[in-house]
Amino acid sequence: MKYCPQCGNKTEPIIPEGDNRVRDVCDSCDLIHYQNPRIIAGCIPAWDDKVLLCKRAIHPRKGFWTLPAGFMELGETTEQAALRETLEEAEAVVQAQGLYAVFNLPHINQVYMMYRSALLKPEFSSGIESLEVRLFAEHEIPWDGLAFETMRLSLEYYFQDMKAGAFKFRSADIEKPLFR
Amino acid sequence: MKYCPQCGNKTEPIIPEGDNRVRDVCDSCDLIHYQNPRIIAGCIPAWDDKVLLCKRAIHPRKGFWTLPAGFMELGETTEQAALRETLEEAEAVVQAQGLYAVFNLPHINQVYMMYRSALLKPEFSSGIESLEVRLFAEHEIPWDGLAFETMRLSLEYYFQDMKAGAFKFRSADIEKPLFR
Repeated sequence: MKYCPQCGNKTEPIIPEGDNRVRDVCDSCDLIHYQNPRIIAGCIPAWDDKVLLCKRAIHPRKGFWTLPAGFMELGETTEQAALRETLEEAEAVVQAQGLYAVFNLPHINQVYMMYRSALLKPEFSSGIESLEVRLFAEHEIPWDGLAFETMRLSLEYYFQDMKAGAFKFRSADIEKPLFR
Repeated sequence: MKYCPQCGNKTEPIIPEGDNRVRDVCDSCDLIHYQNPRIIAGCIPAWDDKVLLCKRAIHPRKGFWTLPAGFMELGETTEQAALRETLEEAEAVVQAQGLYAVFNLPHINQVYMMYRSALLKPEFSSGIESLEVRLFAEHEIPWDGLAFETMRLSLEYYFQDMKAGAFKFRSADIEKPLFR
């Protein structure tokens, strides 16, 4: 940040009084502009023993497969964000079945929140951000063609738990960009 | 937002091409400025059958009791944020014991992530944001003097689960400011 979003004058990176971190502070109106990590909410949409993946039509990782997920918007809950992304990217209506996994990616200031979910009907199609959408059984998953480490982990945990007969809450920290 | 943080020229609230929401877009450099919900990470610090609460020294809800919690910062994980807030507000060192509760507050664009945690020693004191810090057994909790609905729910769930002998992951949406 170089300019104050409120008054348009220059900001300076300084440590405000009583704080212990550098913030962008307006030289003119004294507003302190905080920056915070963002949430990416998504679904693991299930139909029988299969899950729904989308082939990305957009950068980054265009042409690679992902579970439906995207940035949480103002005014919605994490579950609503996950369902909205599934509708937008896979044109699929799902019922949420609880938060399944949280992934922290501190190097890019992202927190993933992935929900288990059930397709109400095996009906889906490519949303504007997807080239292709289809159901995959475990042995069909394109492990080398997945878009993100968070998706590999989500799917690994999911199929492990499915075979064990019980889904348990999962979390992991991804400290470095291992995947690319 | 009125001015572009990148170039200082005026922004306009418009729906960018391919999007379906109003964003602040710079008239001059065309940057789209997204705004997203923020995460508040906190702990339920336990010692025997007691939990550690802090009396707030700062607004909002100055003088009311809260579990240690605060805005997640760039470059940290949700668990690190929860432990840092506990150190800052209660000067207490705790060991995290897993994510316990997620609360969505879409009307104020906040997502709370509360961790169960164990005090390593019964040692704590008032950080700069606290007037007083002390351990409370369930019957001592100042239910009418709690700062936030998220703290009431965290404590209710926690003591319910403690009595039941097993802690289970909790989540709730708080759609309206019921508490104040």
